[in-house]
Amino acid sequence: MKLAIDAMGGDNAPKEIVLGAMKAVQAFNDVHIILVGDENKIKEHLVPSERIEVLHTEEVILATDEPVRAVRRKKDASMVLAARQVTEGKADACISAGNTGALMAAGLFVVGRIEGIERPALAPTLPTIGGEGFLLLDVGANADAKPEHLLQYAVMGSIYSEKARGIKNPRVGLLNIGTEEKKGNELTKSAYALLKEADINFIGNVEARDLLDGVADVVVTDGFTGNMVLKTIEGTAMSVFNMLKSALTSSVKSKLAAAVLKPDLKVLKNKMDYSEYGGAGLFGLKAPVIKAHGSSESNAIYNAIRQAREMAANDVSGTIKKAIEEVQISQ
Amino acid sequence: MKLAIDAMGGDNAPKEIVLGAMKAVQAFNDVHIILVGDENKIKEHLVPSERIEVLHTEEVILATDEPVRAVRRKKDASMVLAARQVTEGKADACISAGNTGALMAAGLFVVGRIEGIERPALAPTLPTIGGEGFLLLDVGANADAKPEHLLQYAVMGSIYSEKARGIKNPRVGLLNIGTEEKKGNELTKSAYALLKEADINFIGNVEARDLLDGVADVVVTDGFTGNMVLKTIEGTAMSVFNMLKSALTSSVKSKLAAAVLKPDLKVLKNKMDYSEYGGAGLFGLKAPVIKAHGSSESNAIYNAIRQAREMAANDVSGTIKKAIEEVQISQ
Repeated sequence: MKLAIDAMGGDNAPKEIVLGAMKAVQAFNDVHIILVGDENKIKEHLVPSERIEVLHTEEVILATDEPVRAVRRKKDASMVLAARQVTEGKADACISAGNTGALMAAGLFVVGRIEGIERPALAPTLPTIGGEGFLLLDVGANADAKPEHLLQYAVMGSIYSEKARGIKNPRVGLLNIGTEEKKGNELTKSAYALLKEADINFIGNVEARDLLDGVADVVVTDGFTGNMVLKTIEGTAMSVFNMLKSALTSSVKSKLAAAVLKPDLKVLKNKMDYSEYGGAGLFGLKAPVIKAHGSSESNAIYNAIRQAREMAANDVSGTIKKAIEEVQISQ
Repeated sequence: MKLAIDAMGGDNAPKEIVLGAMKAVQAFNDVHIILVGDENKIKEHLVPSERIEVLHTEEVILATDEPVRAVRRKKDASMVLAARQVTEGKADACISAGNTGALMAAGLFVVGRIEGIERPALAPTLPTIGGEGFLLLDVGANADAKPEHLLQYAVMGSIYSEKARGIKNPRVGLLNIGTEEKKGNELTKSAYALLKEADINFIGNVEARDLLDGVADVVVTDGFTGNMVLKTIEGTAMSVFNMLKSALTSSVKSKLAAAVLKPDLKVLKNKMDYSEYGGAGLFGLKAPVIKAHGSSESNAIYNAIRQAREMAANDVSGTIKKAIEEVQISQ
């Protein structure tokens, strides 16, 4: 299996990308990686392997670039070239830790949508207290979603969870402001009716306050709300940790006690670290496209590669294609 | 000043409601309280005061009651009767820790909307790391908001923050998925244009991850998103605290260290306790209506009374009325 990786995307590129790729080829002997980017910079960190090749390009999409324009104009940017490897049949999936909007545009314009999918969804797996995680989609590919989009997200999320994460009959919840069927805004009320009839394990509405308790395996929402919830979880967890940190260093006595607790607190912080679950998948495209977090270190890249491998090996894109055709025939 | 309080609403009624009222009359010598509810049950906890009277009724709205129907049918329920004290000129404001939906219905049907206000907003003050807090509106009075509603929320929130919280020229932010002007969904893009022209201190879009850092004094959003963000903050903070608790009790060594840190951790937990800021105001009504948290203890009730007193003393409702008339003339 061949995976194309944008070696120049993210805050720690190319070093951490290269290290993550090296770790992955050691762990998975069926993986062949194409690192796309500046050959000289990549080779500073790369221990040669027969399963890692470098595709040289000097063009790069920056975090500050306007996404759609950047993808259209910078045709040889490392991210665009990585996506093109997929279109040209030279790779089965692609990964980038770069500009999120640009990767969504590259996914849409270069890799291409599955026929019948109206809007692709960006979907990270977020941590839960129990450690199983849940898939949230969409977190911002599509800010103004329609009920039919949410139905497609539910189908795609179910297939991914079953095929790539090995969850049998994944529980799908609709993110809403109450659990009763008639709660919510116009969008969720209409989406509820569609989800209830769909061939998925729909468990009804789920509330934001229960997400981290693992109330569902797949949670569907519009991209505006999903993005909001994602950032609120991140912001709140970070604020609480920062407050905790200043509380634990407020006196000599606290500092001594905190030193004893350091390993426990580290376990706690790791539990909230969602890079363990891989990157955010861009679902609804002809091949897997994974967005790794911008601040990814080698381990997060390794996990994103593992995830892309699972998706490609289990033909998640092909299964989504078939399921969407069936939904359309039945409607 | 007279305040009507539903003595039977909330998980800890009537005891904590009565204790909160007693604390308030001790603290504020201009406050006269009407406790509405079952006289026998109230008197179990009440130390007689010439500034606390009891208005007896046995009817109660339950947490499980369907809000609108309950308010229409249970005309003598403690909550409805408290609201009616305002309409009849016997109280300047009312407070309840009971069924949120029912209190919104009582506010709308009994107290009544200010002319020109299209939708009242439910607005709690949420904690920030620095301790100043921010007002979030709306958190669920109106799930499908229009841009004009967000403009009214901004005006109401500004007036409340200035008049009742003493914040000069409060910074108003529009909750959005990015800070750039053109980011967001159709609602936020249209609302941005209106807010930019309004006679408020509009600071542009604010992101959910920055809320607890105190990025704005007033944050406006539609009720669906606001409810989602509110519950996500609550859920995430609670999950992190629960994980912290289990980490701190995982071994004898941790337990000993945790005991040393207990006072620091308590300070931390208090920082996240938003009952310190009072209850959620229902803005856009002819008089202040305050929703105290369902799990309110006496201190939260005391803070809600303090807040109602500030709102009434500084004529927040009257000022909103004038400002809305001006906005309508200028449009």
